[in-house]
Amino acid sequence: MLLSLKMSYKATTGEDYKADCPPRNPASESNCGSDATEAEEDFVDPWTVQTSSAKGIDYDKLIVRFGSSKIDKELINRIERATGQRPHRFLRRGIFFSHRDMNQVLDAYENKQPFYLYTGRGPSSEAMHVGHLIPFIFTKMSPGFYKNVVKIQKHVTFNQVKGIFGFTDSDCIGKISFPAIQAAPSFSSSFPQIFQDRTDIQCLIPCAIDQDPYFRMTRDVAPRISYPKPALLHSTFFPALQGAQTKMSASDPNSSIFLIDTAKQIKTKVNKHAFSGGRDTIEEHRQFGGNCDVDVSFMYLTFFLEDDDKLEQIRKDYTSGAMLTGELKKTLIEVLQPLIAEHQARRKEVTDEIVKEFMTPRKLSFDFQ
Amino acid sequence: MLLSLKMSYKATTGEDYKADCPPRNPASESNCGSDATEAEEDFVDPWTVQTSSAKGIDYDKLIVRFGSSKIDKELINRIERATGQRPHRFLRRGIFFSHRDMNQVLDAYENKQPFYLYTGRGPSSEAMHVGHLIPFIFTKMSPGFYKNVVKIQKHVTFNQVKGIFGFTDSDCIGKISFPAIQAAPSFSSSFPQIFQDRTDIQCLIPCAIDQDPYFRMTRDVAPRISYPKPALLHSTFFPALQGAQTKMSASDPNSSIFLIDTAKQIKTKVNKHAFSGGRDTIEEHRQFGGNCDVDVSFMYLTFFLEDDDKLEQIRKDYTSGAMLTGELKKTLIEVLQPLIAEHQARRKEVTDEIVKEFMTPRKLSFDFQ
Repeated sequence: MLLSLKMSYKATTGEDYKADCPPRNPASESNCGSDATEAEEDFVDPWTVQTSSAKGIDYDKLIVRFGSSKIDKELINRIERATGQRPHRFLRRGIFFSHRDMNQVLDAYENKQPFYLYTGRGPSSEAMHVGHLIPFIFTKMSPGFYKNVVKIQKHVTFNQVKGIFGFTDSDCIGKISFPAIQAAPSFSSSFPQIFQDRTDIQCLIPCAIDQDPYFRMTRDVAPRISYPKPALLHSTFFPALQGAQTKMSASDPNSSIFLIDTAKQIKTKVNKHAFSGGRDTIEEHRQFGGNCDVDVSFMYLTFFLEDDDKLEQIRKDYTSGAMLTGELKKTLIEVLQPLIAEHQARRKEVTDEIVKEFMTPRKLSFDFQ
Repeated sequence: MLLSLKMSYKATTGEDYKADCPPRNPASESNCGSDATEAEEDFVDPWTVQTSSAKGIDYDKLIVRFGSSKIDKELINRIERATGQRPHRFLRRGIFFSHRDMNQVLDAYENKQPFYLYTGRGPSSEAMHVGHLIPFIFTKMSPGFYKNVVKIQKHVTFNQVKGIFGFTDSDCIGKISFPAIQAAPSFSSSFPQIFQDRTDIQCLIPCAIDQDPYFRMTRDVAPRISYPKPALLHSTFFPALQGAQTKMSASDPNSSIFLIDTAKQIKTKVNKHAFSGGRDTIEEHRQFGGNCDVDVSFMYLTFFLEDDDKLEQIRKDYTSGAMLTGELKKTLIEVLQPLIAEHQARRKEVTDEIVKEFMTPRKLSFDFQ
């Protein structure tokens, strides 16, 4: 029965579901897109990211499993041509590694047609960590927004969210209906104060790959409610200091660098907690070299060090053993300290009025009709 | 498995679920409170009311099945003592026939403690029918209201709504989560503009009995989120002109008298469509008398004719055969025509400003702190 449910779902959902999900056991059957049946396999859904590999998630496998598209050299070149800008280091280094319909967005951009970004943050603690540095959008429930939530809820059955998210009969109805709330900002008609009556402006969603199930569902619903499918750019996960096996948690102070950390705390945390790919002794390290693929300090540098050449030099030196772990960590500390200090200085300048204006649903400096 | 699910639900839900729901088949198992397994049995849930009896639903059986309490003479007397008013004809005549916790509301009333009413209308066509005459409350989604929706959604699982409403895996997630939206107005904290910070003001809900499943669920959740359970008064159904076998429908113009009907339309509809308990010929009617228990004109008079003595005289005369069907219908027409005309005159006086003020969430003329 579970198999036929899933198959009938696949039959209605089209190209976003061409991923290969071979039947294994009932748990994985009701949870296509996640994968926890074999100990060595990664597990990725919007609530849990787990891998037993210190290198982190196998993203190539994930692309196959999710049925999304790899961000390849050709796409990055097109972005560079279209924008006339050097592509962001997150694109150059494969941090954003997967996408859906990014070519449509580039078509729109080249034809001077509008599109908009949907990205968000729901920090679970007062202090945000460096993974929260991406700009925020908090959505406030306007009538247009709520109308879309209800419209989406009408077009998604329990069978479908069971298939996509692995929900069970014991889950609360809030969790069951929530995917429609996450889906709503994907449609421009959710923001009439910005887009007027336009329902046809495509949305681009840059997000970590674990959020893809929500937008697979959204893209399935879109044509049925006469809205354009949102395009997606998928990023890899920002690793915890302890290693790429898990996502870091805002509730564990030692799992990451926080935006309220002092220069001293940054130094201590990196030195004490950042998982090292170095050897046990200096002698061994000089002889055999370190392993950048599992070294968290190196991973953090791929996110925060802008200079590609310098990064490549560090990789070579650390891999050959020319650079020691302490030196690598010192480099990271010297990148993070000014970055965080600058954020703290700018945050200090934010007044209640600025926050209030930012949070008020309002027309932006773009004209739509 | 279905049995154990239902039993574990009953185990957690306490006194509102003491109704006897013997296992019959899976459909009725997942649908306690509804009942469609035997052809002769009534079916009542929030979407469907059906009976094969021309007398309408067997309300005494429904009280047992729903586990609610009968509105007996003692309760009606207490209402009369507490209010110093003759009880409304809907109470005197058993139109409101069932309740939950009405004695708590009377306690509050006698102790000059506040409580509030929750009642509503969602007309499915432009023209409303006489069943819509009860005052409206349209709820607008305020932050306090929405917070309660989410709080309730967090405390109700799919298993529970499956048990209460008979939802299946093929139902859309909007339907599955909707009971929390209907539940929210039962709590005073949903209306901060009226009740300030008070979360402890009890709500009284007068509604037709088919809405009880929503509030059974609400009463189950209430103590778990530290709110008082809403009290309930259950009414019988206002019958369609065609007979008490079904509820009337706002989308079928001949199923009831509409609030936009002219005096002439009222006359035609009653004469042509009101199901009669009279005999086939005048001779038979004079000899054997008519049947008030199935006569829709008589049923409508129990709702709209205020004079109890006159109503009792009509019952006697029609039952004995002294009153003919034409005379009974004429009486009803003469009651309905001025009632509807008065409504139309008052409706004409309603300006856009009055509607706007009525619909604006605002402090009312009651002080809470």
